[in-house]
Amino acid sequence: MSYIIRPWATRDLKDVMRLIRECAKAHGALDQVRTTPEMLRDHGFGKESTFGCLVAELPSEQKSKSGHTIIGYQFHYLSYCTWDGHILFGEDLYVMPDFRGKGIGTSLLKKAAKVALEKGCSQFRFISASWNQPAMDFFTKLGALDVTFSSSWNLCHLDGDHVRKLAEKVGK
Amino acid sequence: MSYIIRPWATRDLKDVMRLIRECAKAHGALDQVRTTPEMLRDHGFGKESTFGCLVAELPSEQKSKSGHTIIGYQFHYLSYCTWDGHILFGEDLYVMPDFRGKGIGTSLLKKAAKVALEKGCSQFRFISASWNQPAMDFFTKLGALDVTFSSSWNLCHLDGDHVRKLAEKVGK
Repeated sequence: MSYIIRPWATRDLKDVMRLIRECAKAHGALDQVRTTPEMLRDHGFGKESTFGCLVAELPSEQKSKSGHTIIGYQFHYLSYCTWDGHILFGEDLYVMPDFRGKGIGTSLLKKAAKVALEKGCSQFRFISASWNQPAMDFFTKLGALDVTFSSSWNLCHLDGDHVRKLAEKVGK
Repeated sequence: MSYIIRPWATRDLKDVMRLIRECAKAHGALDQVRTTPEMLRDHGFGKESTFGCLVAELPSEQKSKSGHTIIGYQFHYLSYCTWDGHILFGEDLYVMPDFRGKGIGTSLLKKAAKVALEKGCSQFRFISASWNQPAMDFFTKLGALDVTFSSSWNLCHLDGDHVRKLAEKVGK
């Protein structure tokens, strides 16, 4: 099976958005997706863009059953660890179910690792759902360490309402 | 007790590095700190800087026992969630032990929330050690949600060796 891994282009925006929504649906969180292809275009292709995306693409004669050639993506941004310096943060990695087990996820991650090195990053950090055992096994096989499990680092969020409430109190 | 919260400047590099090391020591991870004041200067004050830092500063007549006026910091960078758009990622929040319980951590976070809004971020994401109950209680009080606990999101790392190993396999 042939496919290529390449950086996304504006022509991929609708496809990447479709896959972001598929991935969110698999996490039971489709209602939490507020991004749109237009937002991704404005934020991802402007001169101040802080993130990048890789896509897995089939040749046009090998389209998916649903008629698509973009069948996976890996989304990342440059971040900074006060202990290690620049690190690449992998936000999402997703391959359509019909195309799993063919090495496409690994190919996306290999290319992301190359991006990390090109950007001078000392490590690759990412988030994975601990209930998704196949994903966890896949990452472990590549040498990843679950630092929530090993070092008790938990991920926390302050949503928009709480951020606004906090910001309003500056000087009080 | 008077103090100000302000964005860091190059004159703060040594102080921030001192606090980064104090914070890492409190996590039993001093040996993992590879950053230097020079690295922070080159990465944090160049035109391609991707992160920022806020410092808590005492008036010079109220120095700490150890002779310092910079007694806390909050380190952050702009990141991107495929569901929410831009988010501010809080990498570290630290206040020297002698100055805790005086609202300095909250003041740092309030200012970070203001930075988040100014940068058009929909949320503030951060990592906290689950064994550090006082920190977890502090964040919960401000409205933060531990999404590792509530939604099983775990943080994972691929270290430099594994990133290089993966990158070398591109095309194989």
